[in-house]
Amino acid sequence: MFEKISIIGCGLIGSSILRNINNKKISKTITVYDKAKNVIDIIKKNNLCDNISKDIKSAVENSDLVILSVPLSSYKEILLEAKDHFKKDAIITDTGSVKKEVNKIFGNLNLKNIFWITSHPIAGTEESGPLAGFKDLFKNRWTIICENENDNVDKIEKLKKFWESLGSRVKLMSAEQHDFILALTSHLPHAVAYNIVITALSSDDKYKDELVKYSAGGLRDFTRIASSDPIMWRDIFLDNSANIIDILNKFSENLDDLKKAIRDKNGEKLLKIFTSTKNIRKEIIKAGQDVKLPDFGRKKS
Amino acid sequence: MFEKISIIGCGLIGSSILRNINNKKISKTITVYDKAKNVIDIIKKNNLCDNISKDIKSAVENSDLVILSVPLSSYKEILLEAKDHFKKDAIITDTGSVKKEVNKIFGNLNLKNIFWITSHPIAGTEESGPLAGFKDLFKNRWTIICENENDNVDKIEKLKKFWESLGSRVKLMSAEQHDFILALTSHLPHAVAYNIVITALSSDDKYKDELVKYSAGGLRDFTRIASSDPIMWRDIFLDNSANIIDILNKFSENLDDLKKAIRDKNGEKLLKIFTSTKNIRKEIIKAGQDVKLPDFGRKKS
Repeated sequence: MFEKISIIGCGLIGSSILRNINNKKISKTITVYDKAKNVIDIIKKNNLCDNISKDIKSAVENSDLVILSVPLSSYKEILLEAKDHFKKDAIITDTGSVKKEVNKIFGNLNLKNIFWITSHPIAGTEESGPLAGFKDLFKNRWTIICENENDNVDKIEKLKKFWESLGSRVKLMSAEQHDFILALTSHLPHAVAYNIVITALSSDDKYKDELVKYSAGGLRDFTRIASSDPIMWRDIFLDNSANIIDILNKFSENLDDLKKAIRDKNGEKLLKIFTSTKNIRKEIIKAGQDVKLPDFGRKKS
Repeated sequence: MFEKISIIGCGLIGSSILRNINNKKISKTITVYDKAKNVIDIIKKNNLCDNISKDIKSAVENSDLVILSVPLSSYKEILLEAKDHFKKDAIITDTGSVKKEVNKIFGNLNLKNIFWITSHPIAGTEESGPLAGFKDLFKNRWTIICENENDNVDKIEKLKKFWESLGSRVKLMSAEQHDFILALTSHLPHAVAYNIVITALSSDDKYKDELVKYSAGGLRDFTRIASSDPIMWRDIFLDNSANIIDILNKFSENLDDLKKAIRDKNGEKLLKIFTSTKNIRKEIIKAGQDVKLPDFGRKKS
């Protein structure tokens, strides 16, 4: 499908792509670049890639598809370093969780005959780093490709096929739509998960042990996503701040309603609220986006 | 250990006790009572118990241990019906999630030589009903027994051994302590999970499909506990309202702080917040209260 693919950044996402590409043989050459020496050591030790670039310039040269899988705050530096070395007609994509802001960075470079088409695979775990990656990460998950009116249809099609070859399903939408929807499905839950863990931890220090012991009553579910990579999440909150503030304001309004129902001992209203949230999980399971087993299929430890 | 145990209410918790008791043979006779005919049919069909009581009176008569595993709002009716039929020296316990309010109900009955000692196994799944139960539900989970100053030490010890025989670890504390800690570890997470799902669903109806498709970005974790039994949770919020309101107020204050950091684009503060929540999960896993595998060990669907 490609002569050369370059993966810039080899953490959870980058290394999962790498594991899967090797598996599928969809490019003659694959090269990786990562600025962290320990990441490169892991890639070598685990034989994840034969072709390790020493710098960004040599990584992107002659490449038909360049994939940035780095935190959003690293895009600018990388793109500035790479911009004069992209192959003519290359597709440059990414795997980041916010699109509008990074589109501005690329726009400011004023590159001709280079196709910047952003991607976002909605896949991942709470872990990070190259050892956390696995080849089936994208299987049955959705990847959003953000399209603009003037995008090259063939290039989008090629990028779509690339993600599909990794096992992903693909949906096209605008960057604005993407940033709004992800604020709902991902950024809001993360904000709330971080906040709930902070609230539980700060409530009374002497109960720290109890928090851990009795976390199976609900808290433990939230600690999973509240243990995600802090740098990645800082960047998401900075880049998508307007959408996130909007949705957090709505969340606060709803929470005030809930508090009022509790304070008023309004059992009828509480029952209505708790019943209204019951069905969405069934739909998520039906859509293949979660497991059907209770407790996420956790095994007793 | 006992001559006769009575289980009143045979849903997720009651049926899990039943499955485990049968397995362990710790009582000569076990009887169950459930007011729902369909529950009784399931118990019969699955051979979960030979001895099904037709009413509460005959269920509790001659019983050494009576276990209420019903929603909190059913306690009063059941206890009023049972109070004149308890065996002398019997232990009456429960499995409910809030203690202070139900202690009042029992206190008002003014029974002599009957030992009301409440229990709370911190175990469960988002499912409910007798088919959702399984015998290892309590394995490695904690059960809290709430003790008062005047409690009979021997009876507490007997109840403790009962829970341990089901595979549970046991901790003693006061009802006040229990209700405060559970507000943190369980009631707060549930309130927030319900609220997050409501917020996502109400934000914009036209994005309903997208919510489902891209829920793997975080939302799906919250839909699990937001699909728990509505009646059970209504009762918890009514019975523990003061603690829950307190902790939700703290949560709101912390959320306002987080919103401010996002609005101010204060990356340093965000990074600090997101780093501070990373370790608690490791402790929960170390304490055997969650699985070590990423994504709760979910298998790709």
